[in-house]
Amino acid sequence: MNRIKVVKNILDANHRIAEENRRLFDEKDIFVANLMSSPGAGKTSFLENILPALKSKYRVGIIEGDIQDTYDAERISRLNVPVVQINTGGACHIDGNMVKETFHDLPLDDVDLLILENVGNLVCPAEFSIGENLKIMLLSVPEGDDKPMKYPLMFKVSRALIINKIDLLPFVPFSLEKAKNNALKINPKLNLFDISCKTGEGLEDFLRWFEKEIDAYLSTRPGGKSRG
Amino acid sequence: MNRIKVVKNILDANHRIAEENRRLFDEKDIFVANLMSSPGAGKTSFLENILPALKSKYRVGIIEGDIQDTYDAERISRLNVPVVQINTGGACHIDGNMVKETFHDLPLDDVDLLILENVGNLVCPAEFSIGENLKIMLLSVPEGDDKPMKYPLMFKVSRALIINKIDLLPFVPFSLEKAKNNALKINPKLNLFDISCKTGEGLEDFLRWFEKEIDAYLSTRPGGKSRG
Repeated sequence: MNRIKVVKNILDANHRIAEENRRLFDEKDIFVANLMSSPGAGKTSFLENILPALKSKYRVGIIEGDIQDTYDAERISRLNVPVVQINTGGACHIDGNMVKETFHDLPLDDVDLLILENVGNLVCPAEFSIGENLKIMLLSVPEGDDKPMKYPLMFKVSRALIINKIDLLPFVPFSLEKAKNNALKINPKLNLFDISCKTGEGLEDFLRWFEKEIDAYLSTRPGGKSRG
Repeated sequence: MNRIKVVKNILDANHRIAEENRRLFDEKDIFVANLMSSPGAGKTSFLENILPALKSKYRVGIIEGDIQDTYDAERISRLNVPVVQINTGGACHIDGNMVKETFHDLPLDDVDLLILENVGNLVCPAEFSIGENLKIMLLSVPEGDDKPMKYPLMFKVSRALIINKIDLLPFVPFSLEKAKNNALKINPKLNLFDISCKTGEGLEDFLRWFEKEIDAYLSTRPGGKSRG
């Protein structure tokens, strides 16, 4: 078996489906963000923290990607946001086809902002586009400041790097400066944010940037869905 | 493309190579451990902490698995242990064939204990046997006590679960009891250890168990390599 060829075929097929998804998102004027990180870096807590502000400006939908079960979807649904769960049944990332399968369960005509919380994995999710406008990644302080050099692809494909759990900086060996320099070596265009979902620090800065990205997209759409 | 079939073919091919590796390890009386965790859970620090004691009893060899670069191998080689680096070039796990490729660079005739530090990933490494005697996984406290339910396969295939960074327990929401109960629901036979590579707590307990496993294997080998 030629494994490299198999991988290339899978990625090519995914690329085509991601483009189809993108066409549908454009038809419906939906801004899509793909949120990625290692397991336990705090993706769900981050969403819990930013969704109240986002909900007040946009009609939000969430796709939760997990190997199995619905723990994260249950947490998000408590915020009264439409959530669809993808269970990958073992696969370590969400691909374009899995996202496509959620469309019949999502009220896409009533969504301006769709966020995918990917499977916790610092490697494969970065390889699979789902038709998103942008990818955002979280790196949590306890993971270490060497991660950009060791898992470069995710840092390369992301538009924003959010360094989470900065409240733990006094207790672990982690240099914000080193982490950021390492990340910028991989991707000089990264937008950088330091946050703590525990204290709320830094969330405002991220939201200001994120809303600007969303508004820039929505303002170009001819359909111009009303935002409430 | 039938992706499920492709995955099955890859796993079947890996299984055959893992069996070949195992035959070679048995010929040479080598105990092999496959160490797995999320990125940044502390695998390399853990090895740095246990290798001095292991070196005094066994002839140790290390295989470092990373997407790219040699940061971890450089850290380990400072302990004067033979290290071979596997760079997966993007692949998110180490498979049997990658391990086989290291054999010409490892002094297998002079090794009793071979430890693979896998790529940081809580999903795929669990699917790929490399011909090891046992799999060991690290879960670090900041990742959260819900991980066994969300990434069950790794907990299921591991013989030992090492909960690392317990020095951070006062600062993050993590219940040792809940994490252990969740893990034991997935795999009732797991051997559990709480450790901190920062304070050294718990390392003795782990070493006592691990050396017992190694000695049990080595004592059954007819070759009976002398251990120094």
